[in-house]
Amino acid sequence: MRIIIDAMGGDNAPGEIVKGAVRARRELGVDITLVGREAEVRQCLAAENCEDIEVVNATEVITMEDDPSTATRRKKDASMTVALNLLRDGKGDAMVSAGSTGALLTGATLIVKRIRGIRRAALAPVLPAGEHGVLLIDCGANVECSSEYLLQFAYMGSFYAKTVMGAENPRVGLVNVGTEDTKGGAMQHETFALLKKAGEEGRINFVGNIEGSDVFGGKVEVAVCDGFTGNVLLKGCEGVIKFMMHALKDVFYKSTKNKLAALALKKDFTLMKDTLDVNKVGGTALLGISKPVCKAHGSSNAESLFATVRQAKHVVDSNIIGQIKENIDYMRIGSSGDAEA
Amino acid sequence: MRIIIDAMGGDNAPGEIVKGAVRARRELGVDITLVGREAEVRQCLAAENCEDIEVVNATEVITMEDDPSTATRRKKDASMTVALNLLRDGKGDAMVSAGSTGALLTGATLIVKRIRGIRRAALAPVLPAGEHGVLLIDCGANVECSSEYLLQFAYMGSFYAKTVMGAENPRVGLVNVGTEDTKGGAMQHETFALLKKAGEEGRINFVGNIEGSDVFGGKVEVAVCDGFTGNVLLKGCEGVIKFMMHALKDVFYKSTKNKLAALALKKDFTLMKDTLDVNKVGGTALLGISKPVCKAHGSSNAESLFATVRQAKHVVDSNIIGQIKENIDYMRIGSSGDAEA
Repeated sequence: MRIIIDAMGGDNAPGEIVKGAVRARRELGVDITLVGREAEVRQCLAAENCEDIEVVNATEVITMEDDPSTATRRKKDASMTVALNLLRDGKGDAMVSAGSTGALLTGATLIVKRIRGIRRAALAPVLPAGEHGVLLIDCGANVECSSEYLLQFAYMGSFYAKTVMGAENPRVGLVNVGTEDTKGGAMQHETFALLKKAGEEGRINFVGNIEGSDVFGGKVEVAVCDGFTGNVLLKGCEGVIKFMMHALKDVFYKSTKNKLAALALKKDFTLMKDTLDVNKVGGTALLGISKPVCKAHGSSNAESLFATVRQAKHVVDSNIIGQIKENIDYMRIGSSGDAEA
Repeated sequence: MRIIIDAMGGDNAPGEIVKGAVRARRELGVDITLVGREAEVRQCLAAENCEDIEVVNATEVITMEDDPSTATRRKKDASMTVALNLLRDGKGDAMVSAGSTGALLTGATLIVKRIRGIRRAALAPVLPAGEHGVLLIDCGANVECSSEYLLQFAYMGSFYAKTVMGAENPRVGLVNVGTEDTKGGAMQHETFALLKKAGEEGRINFVGNIEGSDVFGGKVEVAVCDGFTGNVLLKGCEGVIKFMMHALKDVFYKSTKNKLAALALKKDFTLMKDTLDVNKVGGTALLGISKPVCKAHGSSNAESLFATVRQAKHVVDSNIIGQIKENIDYMRIGSSGDAEA
């Protein structure tokens, strides 16, 4: 299996990206193609004593200043663009980038294309909760959603939870303002009916509406949401974690007595903190794209990049894309034709 | 000043409600009217050695099983309905209830009415962040919002932050999926333009779009949001806090060494926990109603009820309703007439 990596994406590229890629090759047994400014990338490889990794030269870099909706079209020789082209052309099995989320999403849609019949690709990170974690789908790819998009997110999320997260019969919940069937607006009502029907047909394990507090409560493995709400929820939760970590730090440093006590707790506290650390849990799969594309966190270090390559390997191994293709007829409503970009 | 209290609302009524009311009278110097089943309420008052508080009898109770949209119309003699009628009739200056949020919102709108020109009342809790806290408006009163609603939320939130929270020049942010001006869907774009204009005219201090993570980041005093997203965000944050508290507890109880260390931290840790405790910070004002109505948490104990009465007193003292009335012309767009229910 070969993983194509955008070596220039993210805040710590190319150094940390190359470091994570080298570790992934050693520990996961995958072949790696690094895409980026060849001289820079080779220098990083030399620093890691690993000079036999394939490098494909790309002279440009997509930055946070580039308009995401046009970045890969304007910068044809950017590392991200070239990496996506390699994936499309079958030169690897999956692509990983820590670059601009918006540019990656648009680029993957335009270059690699969506799975036939899938209306929109979704960003679906796995958050810590329960035994398997919870997949929050969508988290910002689509700020305005139709009920059909959400139906597709539910199916794709369910396949992902089963094959990649290892949940036997993943519970799917619709994020809403209450658990009663009638909660929410028109979009939630329509989606509820579609998910309920899919549940009754035994295609997904729909458990009904869930509240924001249930996302972290271990009540479901898949939380289905429009991208606007999902994005605000995800970032809000990140903000709360940060806020609490600061508050805890203040407690730990308040006095000598507290400092000594904190020292005794340090090991276990760090283990707990790690479960909440984006750098440890891997990246976000772009579900709905016709080949595996995974987004690593923009602030990825080597460890985070490694975790995202491991995730990409799981996505390839799981054949989730095959599963989506096989079930696409159940995932569409109406007959408004194909949605390929 | 007289505060009318629904003595039968919430999980711990009437015992804890009466206890909190007695404390409020003693410590805040306000007059109290308790509304509920007179015999039960008087028994609670006797237990508190405080039998000279005014009690108005109401034979029914609105429960979580009642349809919120019709509860106060169907149960004319419910404690909540009678309390709202007393407020409308000028028998008190503010009303407090720990009962069903939906029923209170509908009841307040139907009985007390909205301020003339205000399209929708909003639920606006204050969350811990920065120096003054942050008002998240709306948190679930309105699952589907227009840009005009959000403009009104921004004004009302700004007045509240200034007069009740004590923020000199409260910063108002629009919750969105990114900080760039162009982020979000059509509703956010329209709202952004309205808030920007209000900011340029010097009527509010609009600082632009904010992300979910900024809500707890101390970046603004007022976070403006549709009620669907606000509700999911608020409950999601509550879920994360609960999740982290559990994880911390696991760390604290893991070993004898950890238990001893946790014991040393206990006092300061409890203080920190209190800042995140809904029972300590008071309730949620229903902004847009023509007289002060405050919702205490459904699981309110005496302390939480007391904090909500204190908040109601601040709302009366601040004359925020007068401020909203004075500025109503700036808070409306178009000329689609009055929005009274």
